[in-house]
Amino acid sequence: MSTLPFRQVAIVGLGLMGGSLALALRQLRDRPRVTGLSRDPEELRSARRAGALDEGSEDAHSALAGADLVVYATPTRVTLELLREHRDLWLASAVVSDVGSVKRPVLAEAARLGLEPRFVGGHPMAGGHRSGFAAARADLYQGARVWLVAGQGGENALQRVAELWRAVGARPESADAEAHDLLMAWVSHLPQVAASALGIALARAAVAPDTLGPGGRDATRLAASAPELWADILLENGDLLQGPLRGFAAAVQELADEIAGGDRARLEALLARAREWREGT
Amino acid sequence: MSTLPFRQVAIVGLGLMGGSLALALRQLRDRPRVTGLSRDPEELRSARRAGALDEGSEDAHSALAGADLVVYATPTRVTLELLREHRDLWLASAVVSDVGSVKRPVLAEAARLGLEPRFVGGHPMAGGHRSGFAAARADLYQGARVWLVAGQGGENALQRVAELWRAVGARPESADAEAHDLLMAWVSHLPQVAASALGIALARAAVAPDTLGPGGRDATRLAASAPELWADILLENGDLLQGPLRGFAAAVQELADEIAGGDRARLEALLARAREWREGT
Repeated sequence: MSTLPFRQVAIVGLGLMGGSLALALRQLRDRPRVTGLSRDPEELRSARRAGALDEGSEDAHSALAGADLVVYATPTRVTLELLREHRDLWLASAVVSDVGSVKRPVLAEAARLGLEPRFVGGHPMAGGHRSGFAAARADLYQGARVWLVAGQGGENALQRVAELWRAVGARPESADAEAHDLLMAWVSHLPQVAASALGIALARAAVAPDTLGPGGRDATRLAASAPELWADILLENGDLLQGPLRGFAAAVQELADEIAGGDRARLEALLARAREWREGT
Repeated sequence: MSTLPFRQVAIVGLGLMGGSLALALRQLRDRPRVTGLSRDPEELRSARRAGALDEGSEDAHSALAGADLVVYATPTRVTLELLREHRDLWLASAVVSDVGSVKRPVLAEAARLGLEPRFVGGHPMAGGHRSGFAAARADLYQGARVWLVAGQGGENALQRVAELWRAVGARPESADAEAHDLLMAWVSHLPQVAASALGIALARAAVAPDTLGPGGRDATRLAASAPELWADILLENGDLLQGPLRGFAAAVQELADEIAGGDRARLEALLARAREWREGT
C-alpha cells in the first residue's frame, strides 16, 4: 500500500509537464497506480514505451476510472473544456488539479461546476521552452516551486496535493489565484514577452541566430517557447500583464534615453539597479 | 621552442577575459612565455597563485618587456588610455591586440597612433555576467567565436593572432569594425539592455528575484553584468544601438497591443516568428 495520499493518479495530457509527473511518480518506492489520458496516439505510445504509465488510453472513461486524483496537464483552454466534459467520469471523492500558468480561469470554472472543495489549482515552475513527451524527464520537478491554489473549502485537498508534489521533490507553496497570476505576469509572462520581442526584432533585422554569444542565447532562449501555448497564457493573463508591460517599456525607454543622451553616471546607476536586484541583494 | 606564432604574450588586465587567456595559454604543450600586467595587486596575486603567469607585475616596463604580442584585456576606455601610455614600451615588432566588445574606437586610436599594420582588434564572444580573475577558467574560449578586425595593412598580424586563438580552442573570424559593431548592437548589446530593463522593472515592482522560474532566470541573467563595464560599452556603441533599440521597442509594443486587443491569431503569429528565428530555421 502506498504511503502517498492517493492510490491512483490519472494524468490528462502527457506532454512535458504530464509526462514528467508520470515518470516521477513511477520512480517512487510506494508508487501510486498511474493512468494516462491523451488524444495523441503518438504521445501515448511514447509514454508507454518509457514505462511512464500503468495504463494509458485515448478513452476518458477507462483512463479516469478509479482515480482519486486527476491532474489536467493540458493547456488551460483545453483544461476548461475537459473539466466540463469529464465531470461525470470522476469518482465523487476524487481531487482534481491542473498545472497551468494562470490560475484565475480554472478556479472560476471549478466554482461554476461546484467543484471547489476538491479542486486544487497547481502551477509547477519547471520546464522551459521545450514541449511534448520527448522533453519529459523524471527529475523535472526536483527542487521546483509548485504554486497551489485551493478553492473555497479546499484546504484538505490542497494538503494532499502538496504531499504528492513533495514526494516528487518539488516545493509546494500555497497562494491566492489573483496574487499568483500577478506574480507570474512579472516573473514569467513579462520575460516571455521580452524574449519574444528580442526574437522578433532580430528576425526582422535578418540577424543569424548562430551569431549570438552566451549572454544573447540566455536572453532569447524563451523565444523558442510554443507559440500556441503562450498566446493562450498571455491572453488569459492579459489584464494583469498590462502593468508589467508598461513598467518594462518605460525601463527600456529610460535606458535608450540615457544611451542616446550619453549620461554615463545615470546609465550606470540604472544598470546597477538591475544588477542589485538580479543578485538578490 | 613554441610552434605558436608568438614567443611571449603580455596580457594587460587579469580579469575574466585576460585571466582566462593566461590560464589557457599556460596549458598549451608548446606554450609561450606569459607575462601579466595589472593595477590590482589582489588580481595579480590570484593569477600568480593559480599558475596563470610566468611573471606578473604592476609595472608596465617589466610586464611588457620582450613581448611579441600584447593583449589588452581591459575595458575599452582603459585600453585607449594604455595604448597611448605604453606605445614606447612595446617591441617595435610587437603585435598589439585587445578583447573589447566594440571595435571602432580601438581601431580609430590604433590608426591615430600609426599602429595599424600591427594592431588587431579582437572580441571573443565568451564570458557572461561574472567578472574578475575569480571567474576566469582555462576553457572559457573553447568553441567560442572570436571576431578579429585588422587595421590597414594588418592582414599578416591578423593571421598570427588568429592562430593564437585557435590554439586555445576558439574560432577566429575576421570582420570589418563597423559591421562587427552593428552586429554586436543586435546580438549582444540589445539583449543586455532587454535583460537590464527587465531587472529594473522587476526591482521597481519589488518582485523577489527568488520567485523567478528557469525561464525568467535565463531572460534576466545578463542583468547581473558589471554596470561600469556595460555603461561604457553601450555608450561606445550608442550610435549603432539606436536602430536595434527602436526595433525592439516596436516589437514589445506590438506584442502588448495584441495582448491588450486579444487577437489570438496575430499574437500567435508574432510569437511564432520569434520561435522560428530562435530555432534557427
